[in-house]
Amino acid sequence: MRAVDCIRKKRDGGELSDGEIGAMVRGLSTGEAADYQWAALLMAIYWNGMTDAETISLTNHMARSGIVVDLSSIPGVKIDKHSTGGVGDKTSLILAPIAAAAGILVPMVSGRGLGHTGGTLDKLESIPGFRVDLDLAAYRSTLRDQGLVMIGQTAEIAPADRILYALRDATATVESIPLITASILSKKYAEGIEGLVLDVKTGLGAFMKGLDDSRRLAESMRSIGNGLGLKVRVLITRMDQPLGRGVGNALEIAEAIACLRGEGPADLVDLSVELAAEMVLMGGVSKTVEAARERCLATIADGTAVARFRSMVKAQGGDPAAIDDPNLLPQAKFTYEVKSPRTGFVSGLNAESIGRGTMLLGAGRERVDSTINHATGVILDCKMGDRVEAGDALCTIHADSRGESFDAAVELIASAYDFAETAPEIPRLLVEKF
Amino acid sequence: MRAVDCIRKKRDGGELSDGEIGAMVRGLSTGEAADYQWAALLMAIYWNGMTDAETISLTNHMARSGIVVDLSSIPGVKIDKHSTGGVGDKTSLILAPIAAAAGILVPMVSGRGLGHTGGTLDKLESIPGFRVDLDLAAYRSTLRDQGLVMIGQTAEIAPADRILYALRDATATVESIPLITASILSKKYAEGIEGLVLDVKTGLGAFMKGLDDSRRLAESMRSIGNGLGLKVRVLITRMDQPLGRGVGNALEIAEAIACLRGEGPADLVDLSVELAAEMVLMGGVSKTVEAARERCLATIADGTAVARFRSMVKAQGGDPAAIDDPNLLPQAKFTYEVKSPRTGFVSGLNAESIGRGTMLLGAGRERVDSTINHATGVILDCKMGDRVEAGDALCTIHADSRGESFDAAVELIASAYDFAETAPEIPRLLVEKF
Repeated sequence: MRAVDCIRKKRDGGELSDGEIGAMVRGLSTGEAADYQWAALLMAIYWNGMTDAETISLTNHMARSGIVVDLSSIPGVKIDKHSTGGVGDKTSLILAPIAAAAGILVPMVSGRGLGHTGGTLDKLESIPGFRVDLDLAAYRSTLRDQGLVMIGQTAEIAPADRILYALRDATATVESIPLITASILSKKYAEGIEGLVLDVKTGLGAFMKGLDDSRRLAESMRSIGNGLGLKVRVLITRMDQPLGRGVGNALEIAEAIACLRGEGPADLVDLSVELAAEMVLMGGVSKTVEAARERCLATIADGTAVARFRSMVKAQGGDPAAIDDPNLLPQAKFTYEVKSPRTGFVSGLNAESIGRGTMLLGAGRERVDSTINHATGVILDCKMGDRVEAGDALCTIHADSRGESFDAAVELIASAYDFAETAPEIPRLLVEKF
Repeated sequence: MRAVDCIRKKRDGGELSDGEIGAMVRGLSTGEAADYQWAALLMAIYWNGMTDAETISLTNHMARSGIVVDLSSIPGVKIDKHSTGGVGDKTSLILAPIAAAAGILVPMVSGRGLGHTGGTLDKLESIPGFRVDLDLAAYRSTLRDQGLVMIGQTAEIAPADRILYALRDATATVESIPLITASILSKKYAEGIEGLVLDVKTGLGAFMKGLDDSRRLAESMRSIGNGLGLKVRVLITRMDQPLGRGVGNALEIAEAIACLRGEGPADLVDLSVELAAEMVLMGGVSKTVEAARERCLATIADGTAVARFRSMVKAQGGDPAAIDDPNLLPQAKFTYEVKSPRTGFVSGLNAESIGRGTMLLGAGRERVDSTINHATGVILDCKMGDRVEAGDALCTIHADSRGESFDAAVELIASAYDFAETAPEIPRLLVEKF
């Protein structure tokens, strides 16, 4: 197998064998497949796609470029959840302790935010002392002792994915369904899980804005996950406006804690419980989704969910007092209210504009090497469907400095709001699940 | 301009501006466009092509990545010839001294052979002492004093082309008409020429086997050459069977000398004179192609062409005695006759099989870093249309060693011959010119 022959085969629409794909992935570390050869192959895949068999091979070889963790010595069903990324989406922080309190083991390897979407690791790091860089031994022991663990991708987890993702980012080959599928599932498969609940976002603030694309990605993830022997359940959910009210790292941690205490906004609580219920159902803890939902809601009502979150935070070096008193989380220097320019109903609240605006406040990364300000962000006082009077506060910006970036952020965040005379119809968050 | 944005634009079928293409080519040396980004761009170009404006920009920026030689202080019209590569094609060695003897200045920067096709530099190096690595000062002075000069691509000539060609070779992006055009013309433009006569091969032994592809390449080369301010004349010629009778470096030098002495095979002499005549016509030395042809034939008849070749060889360090006595060229250790298996007419003589067979004898390069044996090759005693009896010699292999490679070469060379009961129709070598 020569790398150039694999590239030519894919360029000409052929199907690569498992042996060829394995050699290309191994070649990344041996040098037999240079990064420029992979770049050409990625562009050929962008054009010609991959069959399910090819995508399963790619995912498998990417996972096996590092350690596929064996969690079988820890009793219990291990199930994770993955979202394709949204704005204000802090469901992982809510559903993981709920599912853990309901009897599922939740080993979660998460990522950082980039562009307009946030990342679970950045949010967690706004809790003073919280460590996401546990090694695999600590990952296993925390999962065994706490029932959940939340870490970043270690050097041992799918190293080929890190190389290929950086290459895709630099070569305009990110937007390819088989490549997205392989990137996500290689990491999830390497975690040592048995099942995965996927939240595929669709809409203005999603990576895949159109429903057809979202559905194709969802179907690909399910087929490939099943091909790897994973149970997979997919929910396609709307990401037109941000989820919940807080956007920004510490603000989202505070909101997640509120949800775990039963004090969260309905959209966020409902979706988190729905995803957790699918994990509980998949794990066989409940027999029906209704029973699973009840069981999840009970963990909020009886305080076991928030307790589980607190003990996980403590086990990972974080200050558990911050869970009881969110004022201990990083606080921005000042707040600024964006006023409504008119009277009427909020008919639109563009999630991408809110995401980009908070990025300008320092809450997100413009580039991979940007640093994050954990305190900044926005609280959405009004969301779609809310009635407002001219001059009412639409949202409250939490910022650390004034200047050009702040002004641009305010403008972008204000522009996210659209208005109408009459109350708009708000589509259901859950589009479909399968 | 970010490299990834240029890749995305081309990926999505957009047209890159001159500024974008210039930045990408300069980025090759500054590092702002990494080789893996170029690899992805090359694959996107392979798919989406380039407009003439884009190809002109690319060619120009590739030429200007090094020195574009200014030959204006040397009086006379400077015209070169380029062939897309064939088997047994030693026309450059014949037409350059003819055109020079007829009053054209011929500055020739040539390449080495790869795969089944030979290279002018390798052939020249079979002349004892001949140096192809002249610097640009020697290139200019030799051209001025001898009327012709034949060198290899120096570090100053289109360095971006060397990088991009190596990338294309490793990423299955060689077969792209705009990329082929830019690669050839960037080097030719950098030579400092005013006009170029192109021999685009078509047929079994050509890089472009189909006439439509050959025609598209020819049209692209003419448009882009004209766009750069060069006069361009294109001849599309058949490369089904090898040109002339000798294939292999020293064997081809000997045959070229025979042609310059008026003792060469008709196909080779006719094509060499036709190409030289186009150069003479383009340079304004003759007013009609008929007159130009006469003038070229006269340089053979009066000995000025071979004298010009001898003095160029001497000026470039070669042994001029080898021009008068081809026995001074490298000689293979033994010869081996391939006999005809049957009586009839030679109806086919596959140039690619002959080229691959001689490569196995050491006369060509399987890889860029293979070494060449200048003595080995084959003399085609019979060509298409010849009548043979069973047991007649079809060709004579010149080899240095027996063994597996030799056996494979004999088999491949013998398999190149097809036979028929009746005399086949032999298509004219020149398909069209424009």
